[in-house]
Amino acid sequence: MSSSFGSKIRIQIFGQSHSEQLGVVIDGLPANHELDIRAINAFLQRRRGGQSHFSTKRAEDDIPKIVSGIVDGKTCGAPLCAVFENTDISSADYEGFRFIPRPSHADYNAFVKYGGANDIRGGGHFSGRLTLPLCFAGAVCKQLLSKRQIYIGAHIARIADIHDTPYDPVNISARDITYTGFPVNDAAAGEKMIGIMNDTAEAGDSIGGIIECAVVGLPQSIGEPMFDGLENRISAAVFAVPAIRGIEFGAGFAAAGMMGSEHNDEYCIEDGSIKHKTNHAGGVLGGLSTGMPLVFRVAIKPTPSIFKEQNSVNIKTMRDVKLQIKGRHDSCIVPRAVPCIEAAAAIAIIDLLEG
Amino acid sequence: MSSSFGSKIRIQIFGQSHSEQLGVVIDGLPANHELDIRAINAFLQRRRGGQSHFSTKRAEDDIPKIVSGIVDGKTCGAPLCAVFENTDISSADYEGFRFIPRPSHADYNAFVKYGGANDIRGGGHFSGRLTLPLCFAGAVCKQLLSKRQIYIGAHIARIADIHDTPYDPVNISARDITYTGFPVNDAAAGEKMIGIMNDTAEAGDSIGGIIECAVVGLPQSIGEPMFDGLENRISAAVFAVPAIRGIEFGAGFAAAGMMGSEHNDEYCIEDGSIKHKTNHAGGVLGGLSTGMPLVFRVAIKPTPSIFKEQNSVNIKTMRDVKLQIKGRHDSCIVPRAVPCIEAAAAIAIIDLLEG
Amino acid sequence: MSSSFGSKIRIQIFGQSHSEQLGVVIDGLPANHELDIRAINAFLQRRRGGQSHFSTKRAEDDIPKIVSGIVDGKTCGAPLCAVFENTDISSADYEGFRFIPRPSHADYNAFVKYGGANDIRGGGHFSGRLTLPLCFAGAVCKQLLSKRQIYIGAHIARIADIHDTPYDPVNISARDITYTGFPVNDAAAGEKMIGIMNDTAEAGDSIGGIIECAVVGLPQSIGEPMFDGLENRISAAVFAVPAIRGIEFGAGFAAAGMMGSEHNDEYCIEDGSIKHKTNHAGGVLGGLSTGMPLVFRVAIKPTPSIFKEQNSVNIKTMRDVKLQIKGRHDSCIVPRAVPCIEAAAAIAIIDLLEG
Amino acid sequence: MSSSFGSKIRIQIFGQSHSEQLGVVIDGLPANHELDIRAINAFLQRRRGGQSHFSTKRAEDDIPKIVSGIVDGKTCGAPLCAVFENTDISSADYEGFRFIPRPSHADYNAFVKYGGANDIRGGGHFSGRLTLPLCFAGAVCKQLLSKRQIYIGAHIARIADIHDTPYDPVNISARDITYTGFPVNDAAAGEKMIGIMNDTAEAGDSIGGIIECAVVGLPQSIGEPMFDGLENRISAAVFAVPAIRGIEFGAGFAAAGMMGSEHNDEYCIEDGSIKHKTNHAGGVLGGLSTGMPLVFRVAIKPTPSIFKEQNSVNIKTMRDVKLQIKGRHDSCIVPRAVPCIEAAAAIAIIDLLEG
Repeated sequence: MSSSFGSKIRIQIFGQSHSEQLGVVIDGLPANHELDIRAINAFLQRRRGGQSHFSTKRAEDDIPKIVSGIVDGKTCGAPLCAVFENTDISSADYEGFRFIPRPSHADYNAFVKYGGANDIRGGGHFSGRLTLPLCFAGAVCKQLLSKRQIYIGAHIARIADIHDTPYDPVNISARDITYTGFPVNDAAAGEKMIGIMNDTAEAGDSIGGIIECAVVGLPQSIGEPMFDGLENRISAAVFAVPAIRGIEFGAGFAAAGMMGSEHNDEYCIEDGSIKHKTNHAGGVLGGLSTGMPLVFRVAIKPTPSIFKEQNSVNIKTMRDVKLQIKGRHDSCIVPRAVPCIEAAAAIAIIDLLEG
Repeated sequence: MSSSFGSKIRIQIFGQSHSEQLGVVIDGLPANHELDIRAINAFLQRRRGGQSHFSTKRAEDDIPKIVSGIVDGKTCGAPLCAVFENTDISSADYEGFRFIPRPSHADYNAFVKYGGANDIRGGGHFSGRLTLPLCFAGAVCKQLLSKRQIYIGAHIARIADIHDTPYDPVNISARDITYTGFPVNDAAAGEKMIGIMNDTAEAGDSIGGIIECAVVGLPQSIGEPMFDGLENRISAAVFAVPAIRGIEFGAGFAAAGMMGSEHNDEYCIEDGSIKHKTNHAGGVLGGLSTGMPLVFRVAIKPTPSIFKEQNSVNIKTMRDVKLQIKGRHDSCIVPRAVPCIEAAAAIAIIDLLEG
Repeated sequence: MSSSFGSKIRIQIFGQSHSEQLGVVIDGLPANHELDIRAINAFLQRRRGGQSHFSTKRAEDDIPKIVSGIVDGKTCGAPLCAVFENTDISSADYEGFRFIPRPSHADYNAFVKYGGANDIRGGGHFSGRLTLPLCFAGAVCKQLLSKRQIYIGAHIARIADIHDTPYDPVNISARDITYTGFPVNDAAAGEKMIGIMNDTAEAGDSIGGIIECAVVGLPQSIGEPMFDGLENRISAAVFAVPAIRGIEFGAGFAAAGMMGSEHNDEYCIEDGSIKHKTNHAGGVLGGLSTGMPLVFRVAIKPTPSIFKEQNSVNIKTMRDVKLQIKGRHDSCIVPRAVPCIEAAAAIAIIDLLEG
Repeated sequence: MSSSFGSKIRIQIFGQSHSEQLGVVIDGLPANHELDIRAINAFLQRRRGGQSHFSTKRAEDDIPKIVSGIVDGKTCGAPLCAVFENTDISSADYEGFRFIPRPSHADYNAFVKYGGANDIRGGGHFSGRLTLPLCFAGAVCKQLLSKRQIYIGAHIARIADIHDTPYDPVNISARDITYTGFPVNDAAAGEKMIGIMNDTAEAGDSIGGIIECAVVGLPQSIGEPMFDGLENRISAAVFAVPAIRGIEFGAGFAAAGMMGSEHNDEYCIEDGSIKHKTNHAGGVLGGLSTGMPLVFRVAIKPTPSIFKEQNSVNIKTMRDVKLQIKGRHDSCIVPRAVPCIEAAAAIAIIDLLEG
């Protein structure tokens, strides 16, 4: 439980924000798969901070060291373990938070759960830094998926009031979801988003957003009924990414206002095979893939760390206090969360495919 | 996998819409718990059909028969098995769908997954009827929770364009979420919803909606980090209910448009204990309960079975065909889904509490 | 946990010795498999009591009723549930044991574990009767295995001092392990065993024995390293059968006295393929099948229920007491345990094969 | 699956004999436990090689580096990861075995399972070296157990024809099982065993043995019925140690020849509490602890690596060949296996206790 996921291909994540190392063990990988390390590193760079005005100044190279499971560049069937060093850590920043929990962080929850023994430095095991090994695992799983012509991509659907052009759920191609740079479909919308994120950083505040993710090439009828449907498993993986507040598939919450005659995806024969004319289902019915692109969106809350002064309490003296967070953090986590969502989807889907 | 859920208290569901019986085995229940059968039956009545204009005419008494795990009315530590008879079944209605999948049902997915061996009668194992054993399990788990002063309730937040008054996320009490009748906070809104559902039934169409669920009394810091947080586990359970298209916690998708300074839930000391002034988190941070009420909403798509003629295909002849669904079904599943959502939440939470 | 087994093909057993029903849910079965009900019933007859002098007088027909998961005689992909009625129960016999635990039964353990709420009638969930649904599940799994030309059989290797001819571990064929009647290789040894069992019954005592089980046709390299090797999984399944006190593979405990040069199974080329000259490994190395027949033996303790007076205690008065067990029971459980061991092996192996 | 174990306290092992590192992640440890590193290292020294004539010349310091899960010497609630370096590796020794499998090793099995991609160096993931992280995990679990006054110890019951004095199953104390040096109860027997192991090494051969393990202080009724009894779980853990060929509890295989009146453990009142007069059950009935010492024995085969020439095959040319193993290895693995068995028991028991 807790930091492991999957049944056939099992991910076990370990580490804290400021522990000596953090990493992941992936058990159950097929043998003889040649890892594309360059692709893994490129993927990891997408979630790396320190690269723009609106993202954390914490800057580590985030290069994985694979310590087991690989022989001559190929998986050997044994559990693959990859570790990362935590080098750019400034733990002293956090000592002040031991008894003054930061609003909308897990500090106080962790304090109670672990009887005060929790690692407060950088949020410990609850830190967004733990998405680094998650992304490593996701990158490996994405490679296994792409060998089956299954591709996963995501874009920023919304930041503040700026909306990107959504994916066309009926006709998304692998090319449409290939990462090329700042992850938006509409470059102009992307510019505006960056402007807003910079302004928000300037104002010492933070902002949330929505990510839309698509999976293309998923074979018909992947998933299991009831508790292990695609939605169940993807949700179970996606909520491992901190700050996710919701997930919806296909028409999602908008389906609540639709009539059946409007929402139903009728079948048709197209080029000799069975297709849907529309894709309000987002590619999944009864937990099983429909053969249409899988489309889901996640809501991301504004980064809880803000520079503005906030009200908190001292849990030792049990008095109200004012809190000023310094440290380093993102004014908007959404761009860096994009690969994390892809990674979460990848680990969920490969486990259903291989399971 | 698939139709089982939980680790410490494990639910295994079985049955199809038209199988001889359907039911559930619950393994890991604490012994010596006196089952309140009357409360279970009352809960099951809430999801029963055949009672109103807008719900299915299928009418069975849905009385559980407990065949193991109970001695003298108390759990004995052995797995509890409860079964239900399927009596009011009209399987002949479904034969026509064997090769003509109903849009937005799982018919075709199941056909492919099981190589044509799937039970097509009433949707087989993918039927909403499988929420009956889920609700039984949920009713049992709710009893275990209420012994710990943890209460779960839900209301219809929206049908079509009619919105019910939402729960006050900061001050919900057990009383606010106690079931008393048609599950809305605002009786007038409820009347309008019933009107719309009846009209929709009349028109041979269907309609979706949103359910809001609250858990009151959850102790501080229940849940596990990363993959077994409250959101992960509740989502994994909730998506077992057919027709769910999305889930959001606290501010949910609205958080995407909020600033951190607006969304953060500041701490304060109130009556000598630590509280949040607001509850945008919906009672969960880092996967762990915050001590505030847990609040989540799910989106429900319109019932896919409608009387209006639809386009489909004949998967044998591979030709486009017109489809007219007769059978019996709900024009709006939302009212009957309310206890299902409570049940899903209950099985997820009890497993984290006991695990 | 507890009464469920397996990951890909998951067995959930329920019921007590005297509950209304007992049964099993099998989730994850491949669809479209035509169940051979006659074969299942024939297998279940092998564990049935009431048929000989040395076995319990409890006599039920033990005919399974399949209530879900089957359509037109074939698996439909949904969980298969089979139930059995408990009809020939004489619960009154057991009331006296509530506070006077029977030596070498689980009575007192269950009393403490379940705070006195345990079902004492017939041993409750700890009864050997629970091997009935286990055998049902095993019979289904054996059918799936035999479609892959994998066969499981077992014989009584020993009762008291009478030893049956062991299997030849190098050359066992499917035919050698096919059930034909009293399960011994040497009919004369079998006669002696029956004589001893009858004498033991006459004397109001009981006796144990050893069962040897073989699996023929297992493909090369089935199993997983470390914790999910064939030995780990078979052991985990086999110890579900009450009264098992030990398990050994291949040379087993005798290996402790052997030299490497004597125990090692050298390789050779035979008819163009790789074979072992000997099979001290019992067909498993490193948790993986070697391609040679899988051979293991289990030790079965004497039935704890004996007619002879025994010392026990009254756990209420905390005084020593004399105990005289009446009821109905086997003086030797070994013959009826033979199909149970085959069943346990079958559920372990199919799960590794399909997983 | 495969290299992970446990539900509540989950062990994930990684590494190969010659990978850069090997190690273990332990998820679910209670927070705030002060790790006694000195005790861990002392325990690990017990399985270290390079210290005697009969054990491998491979000599690494085997000092764990804990990279996560510990803050200020205490568990912080996050997964604990410990790694070991593989330094004294001579991989070149193994290249010759790529196509010539060593008899009674897993070489050929791994070759087939992983399509030739397996790590052949030192046996890869199937190496006895993987018991190093197992022992680390076991040492941590033993500490958790000893805080509850539960103690685990083991001795060499037999090597070749030399038998050590067995534990007295009724009266074992924590002191009786405390490690003090070469793990035998009878020093003279130990001397003879060492003599035999040395002679065997001299002869280029190897020898097996039996280990007896006891758990003292286990509370009444730990374990779960059917598939998660103490025997099931301990067996599932113990067979992760290479070379184990059998396991028996209490009277074990000897029970096969006993009468019920002889084998049954009668109850008595002793000093005001309920005891057994004998302990043929080995402390476990119905999968649950009886409150008496838990006693089990495992059979260990002779080390498969011997210096004597053996017959094997070349799997590429498919011809019979002669094989001469050089490398470094133990002529008798039994002394070094003693802590491994204790470790396996510890991880199985703590998981049942905390689960």
